[in-house]
Amino acid sequence: MNEYIAPLRDMRFILGNLAGLPAIAALPDCEEATPDLVAAILDEAGKFSAGVLAPLNQSGDREGCRLEQGSVITPAGWREAYAQFSQAGWVGLAMPKAYGGQALPKLVSTPVTEMWFAANLAFSILPPMALGAAEALMLAGSDAQKSVFLPKLASGEWAATMDLTEPNAGSDLGAIQTRAEPQPDGSYRLFGQKIFITYGEHELTENIMHLVLARIQGAPEGVRGISMFLVPKFLVNPDGSIGPRNDMQCISVEHKLGIHGSPTCTMSYGDANGAVGHLVGEPGRGLEYMFVMVNESRFNVGLQGIAIAERAYQKALAYSRERLQGRDAATGEQNVPIGRHPDVRRMLLVMRANVMATRMLAYVAAGWFDRARHDPDPEQAARCRNLVDLLMPVVKAWSTELGIETADIAIQIHGGTGYVEESGVAQYLRDVRITSIYEGTTGIQANDLISRKLLRDEGMAMRSLIAEIRGVAEQSLGAENTAQLGAPLQQLTVILEQTMDWVVANGRNAKAEVLGTGVAFLRLTGLVCGGWQMTRAGLAAQSQLETGEGDAVYLRGIVDLAQFYFEHVAVQAASHARTVTQGGAIVARFADAAF
Amino acid sequence: MNEYIAPLRDMRFILGNLAGLPAIAALPDCEEATPDLVAAILDEAGKFSAGVLAPLNQSGDREGCRLEQGSVITPAGWREAYAQFSQAGWVGLAMPKAYGGQALPKLVSTPVTEMWFAANLAFSILPPMALGAAEALMLAGSDAQKSVFLPKLASGEWAATMDLTEPNAGSDLGAIQTRAEPQPDGSYRLFGQKIFITYGEHELTENIMHLVLARIQGAPEGVRGISMFLVPKFLVNPDGSIGPRNDMQCISVEHKLGIHGSPTCTMSYGDANGAVGHLVGEPGRGLEYMFVMVNESRFNVGLQGIAIAERAYQKALAYSRERLQGRDAATGEQNVPIGRHPDVRRMLLVMRANVMATRMLAYVAAGWFDRARHDPDPEQAARCRNLVDLLMPVVKAWSTELGIETADIAIQIHGGTGYVEESGVAQYLRDVRITSIYEGTTGIQANDLISRKLLRDEGMAMRSLIAEIRGVAEQSLGAENTAQLGAPLQQLTVILEQTMDWVVANGRNAKAEVLGTGVAFLRLTGLVCGGWQMTRAGLAAQSQLETGEGDAVYLRGIVDLAQFYFEHVAVQAASHARTVTQGGAIVARFADAAF
Repeated sequence: MNEYIAPLRDMRFILGNLAGLPAIAALPDCEEATPDLVAAILDEAGKFSAGVLAPLNQSGDREGCRLEQGSVITPAGWREAYAQFSQAGWVGLAMPKAYGGQALPKLVSTPVTEMWFAANLAFSILPPMALGAAEALMLAGSDAQKSVFLPKLASGEWAATMDLTEPNAGSDLGAIQTRAEPQPDGSYRLFGQKIFITYGEHELTENIMHLVLARIQGAPEGVRGISMFLVPKFLVNPDGSIGPRNDMQCISVEHKLGIHGSPTCTMSYGDANGAVGHLVGEPGRGLEYMFVMVNESRFNVGLQGIAIAERAYQKALAYSRERLQGRDAATGEQNVPIGRHPDVRRMLLVMRANVMATRMLAYVAAGWFDRARHDPDPEQAARCRNLVDLLMPVVKAWSTELGIETADIAIQIHGGTGYVEESGVAQYLRDVRITSIYEGTTGIQANDLISRKLLRDEGMAMRSLIAEIRGVAEQSLGAENTAQLGAPLQQLTVILEQTMDWVVANGRNAKAEVLGTGVAFLRLTGLVCGGWQMTRAGLAAQSQLETGEGDAVYLRGIVDLAQFYFEHVAVQAASHARTVTQGGAIVARFADAAF
Repeated sequence: MNEYIAPLRDMRFILGNLAGLPAIAALPDCEEATPDLVAAILDEAGKFSAGVLAPLNQSGDREGCRLEQGSVITPAGWREAYAQFSQAGWVGLAMPKAYGGQALPKLVSTPVTEMWFAANLAFSILPPMALGAAEALMLAGSDAQKSVFLPKLASGEWAATMDLTEPNAGSDLGAIQTRAEPQPDGSYRLFGQKIFITYGEHELTENIMHLVLARIQGAPEGVRGISMFLVPKFLVNPDGSIGPRNDMQCISVEHKLGIHGSPTCTMSYGDANGAVGHLVGEPGRGLEYMFVMVNESRFNVGLQGIAIAERAYQKALAYSRERLQGRDAATGEQNVPIGRHPDVRRMLLVMRANVMATRMLAYVAAGWFDRARHDPDPEQAARCRNLVDLLMPVVKAWSTELGIETADIAIQIHGGTGYVEESGVAQYLRDVRITSIYEGTTGIQANDLISRKLLRDEGMAMRSLIAEIRGVAEQSLGAENTAQLGAPLQQLTVILEQTMDWVVANGRNAKAEVLGTGVAFLRLTGLVCGGWQMTRAGLAAQSQLETGEGDAVYLRGIVDLAQFYFEHVAVQAASHARTVTQGGAIVARFADAAF
């Protein structure tokens, strides 16, 4: 009843037809991604996620984590699953070979990571943090730091955390107050408290490497005074062996709405004589290093939204086929599966459209990551870097907002049963609800999209994106059987362009008004990008239908899903556009005392 | 931090300006509702809800209910609160004087009930069931049943339940299988299992009166074979005193996503020799009697959505004023309350607009209930009965959908803090999530609106509603300072009318297609009705502003809120209309195998 089956067919369709896997596998440093190896990896990940991680999802939720005498106890089965996971080499899938990783492109690690998240979100948010920490060390770490820590992170023997948030420094990291005192030996002693630290303490690994943002004594105020420190749970001897316990502790574990199986810790540094930390890179550049990882970590959170939406869809679909209730509206037949009722069909289709549209955009973006890094053509690489930068707030926020909506629909399809925890459906909503908050809320993503991605270049990157989408619309209008997709996509590009022009024209003089409708602009952008990829999918499916390749029912379903998407999901675009151009003034003007 | 303050100013504004309290207080049998008494009742209810019920809300959630040797243990404080609640006479507020009630109009009991729900939903879903059961007995009970049970229900000494659902009979009650065997003394013995029975067992009252739907042996299949039985937990002697325990028991209590403080029971009838039950009214009319209460119970659930939305709004507003983070977008000032950030302002305004629009419609509908029952002018009474019937699925489903959205926004405004259970915010979402499911899901309400309310009279009732709304739009366009409300309202009436015409034209021949977009039609209807009431509110506020009565900041806020509503909330109406007219075919056509 609670199983998860990796949606390999959908994944392969997107990888092959939309995200350009063959071309990416031909890039330098991506050659590992041969068709055979990719197929084998996806299959194995599918088995591991379904066989090892998914069965622990509900029990982990029920059991949760607890703090006992400074130790965090994770749910039963976590330790064994982590051992299997790391021994199978999954942690280092996308890390360089030099440090023991498998050096696979992001486009390959993306569906794999989606599977982990879908199978067991609370468990699976741990391993990607090792990759994030490794990226930071590769960027800014000393040779000694790299050689000691990177192999341990890639193998999964040691875990990592990112310690940013403090009680008074959440969305505004400039307010960080944890302080670092320089020591004669070049190390630092850290003092301060960090909150909301995911897997801040646990015993799944023999050591934990905390990347902590702190201020060196005398550093300037604000973001320029923040440095990054590597603070291991156990000190590490020069030969890489484990030394004594560092002066830090987990002082509480949050009781959260969801992801109960993942300990969210309050970490206290330096209660005795200071936690030993090592500066990473140069002083004052901590936030900059952290933000190098930010596109990656936001991407991962977007993927979490997609993953849980897929899981919720599978569950709702299964229930809609097995639960018998009521009469068929067309034939009058009694006691039919509820999936026959028109409104239930609609809800299932909204779920599937949400999953597929967000997944298509995310996988295509994963391909851009790879091209940005590896494409030997500098123009292509720059184009992809620009697209990643422009659309990462959309991939993060739009995928998570739709992920939450999708998990919510799964409850609705289950009716009263969905409200009962034993069904497992409510957990999806509880778990996914964090994704539109952590790594920057939807509001923060919208600010980023408007301020840094749109206004800074006065819409240049967005305009070239729209031109690209328009090309797809025209191609679709030109073809015989996809005009039903090209027409709405073309309309959407007009709406997006006009709205963008308005934002660019008003962004400087009426910043508060524009930011007051930023989320509507972000949603609009997401819907148009989803339509772009859905239309590309429809074109690919239609052309395969015409040449007779592949499963006709599946391919027809892709074309129909695109049409459904336009009429039930992207249809909101015009409303968002109107809110952007008409709705900002009243937000700015509304009297504080009238709330 | 978790307090609730009854929104008396908003309530009084709506009662007086929109719902016609003075006129209703002048109706026969409503004369109790003098201005002084109403004011006193609202004040007292505000104090009771804030002082007695709200403080138990979070502890009740944490503690939940448990089953111990057949007894259900409710959370600490529940028993004392219930004793105070019933002793103060709140249970019988709207019940007839003849049975010990206070005979107040529904328009007065409505804001009072909203306060209970807002303060503590899990606790407060118990008392209205006594009123529902009383209505059923007044309609169909024997004189003996009335004289024994009604005073006990009105005083709150005995509680009541409605036992409809069975494992295979949820939305489709025709599938009920609990059976009733006639006994020589005229009573029946019941055998069967009922699930999802709210407060099916507890020790807050000395007895519980279960209204159970069951089939008398030999009754026809389907809904016509269902009768209603009164099955007391303890048998009642002819003199009204309590007799021996009846043959029924609570065999499990659900672990739910929310409303933890309310026991949701699986009830087993007749495990020994049959639970003694008494037929209510005539055999085979059980569903009909139950459905007499359905408008009332659906109305109450809609009110729950509004109540939790109000509570969530209050909490988010307080947090937005106390939490300091980030920089003012306009002035650059550092570390400002987050309520200054444009996107947070927007979210707060969406919350307030959602609360007020749904509350306005619900209170106006409460007035229609009273007029339908008490207006001596038969034309007025019929008009109000028609409006209640037409719009009750909208009040139920639209208010709960917006209630869920509003509670969700409260989490978003709190950021990571909102995801932590101690903050109390997540509870609002968990609690309110049931409201779009029980008493008929949103899909069921949409089916009701389309099939019974729209197609049956071919849109006649809806057309007269639209004419009424159009009148308000014209009035608003004609006035000098409310044209910004009249224009969008007029647009909305056109959209609703065109969409309705399409539904009526296609409803017979393409029923499945029309039902596949019924929820979009329901939302459209809700948005237009909300705009109708918001505009009426704006007109009333504007006229008071012009005459200089009242608090100008508050009144200006009402006018501005209406404008915000049109540009940020009702703006979705056009999208829903397009989904209705364009989106049904693909839902019907999508291949089962392509899901």
